[in-house]
Amino acid sequence: MAGGALYSVIPAGGSGTRLWPLSRAEAPKLLHALTGSSASMLQATVARLRPLSPLDRTYVVTGAAHAAAVARQLPDLPDGNVLVEPSPRDSCAAIGLAATLIARRDPDAVMGSFAADHLIRDEEAFVAVIGEAVTAARDGRLMTVGIRPTHAETGYGYLQCGPAIGAGEAREVSRFKEKPSPKVAKQYLASGEYLWNAGIFVWRVDAFLAELSRQQPTMHAALSRIADAWGTDEQDTVLGELWPRLARISVDHAVMEGAADVGLVGTVPGDFGWTDVGDFDTLGRVLAASDTADTNGNVVVLEPKDAPALLRESRRCVVVGQSGRLVVALGVRDLVIVDTPDALLVCGRDRAQDVKAIVDELKRRGDDRYL
Amino acid sequence: MAGGALYSVIPAGGSGTRLWPLSRAEAPKLLHALTGSSASMLQATVARLRPLSPLDRTYVVTGAAHAAAVARQLPDLPDGNVLVEPSPRDSCAAIGLAATLIARRDPDAVMGSFAADHLIRDEEAFVAVIGEAVTAARDGRLMTVGIRPTHAETGYGYLQCGPAIGAGEAREVSRFKEKPSPKVAKQYLASGEYLWNAGIFVWRVDAFLAELSRQQPTMHAALSRIADAWGTDEQDTVLGELWPRLARISVDHAVMEGAADVGLVGTVPGDFGWTDVGDFDTLGRVLAASDTADTNGNVVVLEPKDAPALLRESRRCVVVGQSGRLVVALGVRDLVIVDTPDALLVCGRDRAQDVKAIVDELKRRGDDRYL
Repeated sequence: MAGGALYSVIPAGGSGTRLWPLSRAEAPKLLHALTGSSASMLQATVARLRPLSPLDRTYVVTGAAHAAAVARQLPDLPDGNVLVEPSPRDSCAAIGLAATLIARRDPDAVMGSFAADHLIRDEEAFVAVIGEAVTAARDGRLMTVGIRPTHAETGYGYLQCGPAIGAGEAREVSRFKEKPSPKVAKQYLASGEYLWNAGIFVWRVDAFLAELSRQQPTMHAALSRIADAWGTDEQDTVLGELWPRLARISVDHAVMEGAADVGLVGTVPGDFGWTDVGDFDTLGRVLAASDTADTNGNVVVLEPKDAPALLRESRRCVVVGQSGRLVVALGVRDLVIVDTPDALLVCGRDRAQDVKAIVDELKRRGDDRYL
Repeated sequence: MAGGALYSVIPAGGSGTRLWPLSRAEAPKLLHALTGSSASMLQATVARLRPLSPLDRTYVVTGAAHAAAVARQLPDLPDGNVLVEPSPRDSCAAIGLAATLIARRDPDAVMGSFAADHLIRDEEAFVAVIGEAVTAARDGRLMTVGIRPTHAETGYGYLQCGPAIGAGEAREVSRFKEKPSPKVAKQYLASGEYLWNAGIFVWRVDAFLAELSRQQPTMHAALSRIADAWGTDEQDTVLGELWPRLARISVDHAVMEGAADVGLVGTVPGDFGWTDVGDFDTLGRVLAASDTADTNGNVVVLEPKDAPALLRESRRCVVVGQSGRLVVALGVRDLVIVDTPDALLVCGRDRAQDVKAIVDELKRRGDDRYL
């Protein structure tokens, strides 16, 4: 099947508040080596995409605060492939900017959008699934990747599947579903008709931009004007003028849900060991599953790697050390211990989702230095 | 009743390993403001003794490593009242040196020895009990203070009481008992004949030195030779030569047990809210009892006092912050969290006694920088 090359886009905004105090406004989780390897999550994401798109066709969209860190972590990424948002406007603006600029460069391009804070265990299976999504996208569909649920997870959105597309495993997506209640999550799991929304999108840029124009004409027009100025001495002026006025809206709400209503969205079911590492409990489960845990089920992630830690008669703890200090756990269970140079978190693993509330509390207090 | 004045001696050795990482070889617990006040435990001890003995008659025996800190914490203590041990030789040598030097200064002196790491809630009752012990000591007895047990504690030594001495509450001590098993501790409590050994001693210096001479003649002779040289230009030479050869033995084993065998030891039962703050669980209980806990039973001790801490849905935790970092506890219970500039401890309160094992482990590893 003929068609343009694949371009990879990595939206690298968002600070990952449930991973506070590791993840900060200044050093979001995707810049950290969370997974026990020496690569940051961003670097691991780029490496995972190399078989699909060379660095020349890989873009990172990030905020002004992290542009330098992103550039340094990816020294071989061309300067022009680091797209810097003047301010955060949620995912539709970020992805829309990338799509618009890629379309100017290569009107036949197929673009994939990949979060930088996902863990993927089976990279070969991942590449195969994305390849299938690219094939389906060439027909003009806006493709997603759906993860076959292994349990009634309430922390993810779901995709409701419709009829099959073509001869492969791809299906139409009839509805996008928000994070469900436990009861609804069980129904989804039992029905076999729902997949986890992995937040991965694959589409022809022209197909996406047509839907953006139909559903979000104001944003489409603004992004076109920004693209007109891109690379000229007007770039910063136009960006500075138009960007702050863009709607703050996710690409799911802005484009994908409406596209699903008109039968334009498809999904490729995938089983490649996907996890959205959104909180420390999940991080602990993922690392334990990949044999990083000790015999007592403790997972210890240290930066630097030779930092001292001593766990004694402790079980199923997640210990993240970033300060280089000696961390000692004695006779404790199911705890998250995160030690950073200026803040310490000790938290029950069952409360890992509520770390966000701590960040909210610090914001309310105006204690910005810890955010 | 006639008799010499009271001299207070505070042995300030020992590093308090069960309070690691707060208490270190370089900064033992008695130099810290553990009790929520701004005074260190040493300063609080000296202040508590002021009604009994002015600073001129107060001595601190400490190691070379802590002499400067002791001197700075007690700026009004005369230089000559800081007795510096060249090396730690346990309590008999430390107390014996003080007794020998005080006897040279004032042969009629009564001397009290008071640990610097005890908390005492009712200071007036304490002064009254010590006054009673001084009275009994003037007859030549080696007096102790016995705390009426409130529970079957296994962490303290016990005094087995004999017949009454005189008209007051004082009793003879028939035996010193080591820390008992839980079963034995219950028997002690039920019998009503046992008191906790608070490690407080009151005696005429001549009476104590006579027993030291009888039971430990070698040490007595060496301390006499050291006292001969004290204040001369031979002091450091003689001390450096004789001190390292002194037996490492506690005053309990070296003198008190043998003195009890010959009917020379007495005790005054006391109820003045005494606690040996030996571990973080005890510290938490003591501070909770003195209304320092929050409504969830958490006790938070911070240095500096305005350091940030945020406890959320957490109960009965003991949080000691020494690093100035933000300490956050979320959804945890019955934990000890001790945050110092170079080491962090997270420990179940029920394991507070075992913190010593961590220190032993660090020693075994040769990790001296954290000791």
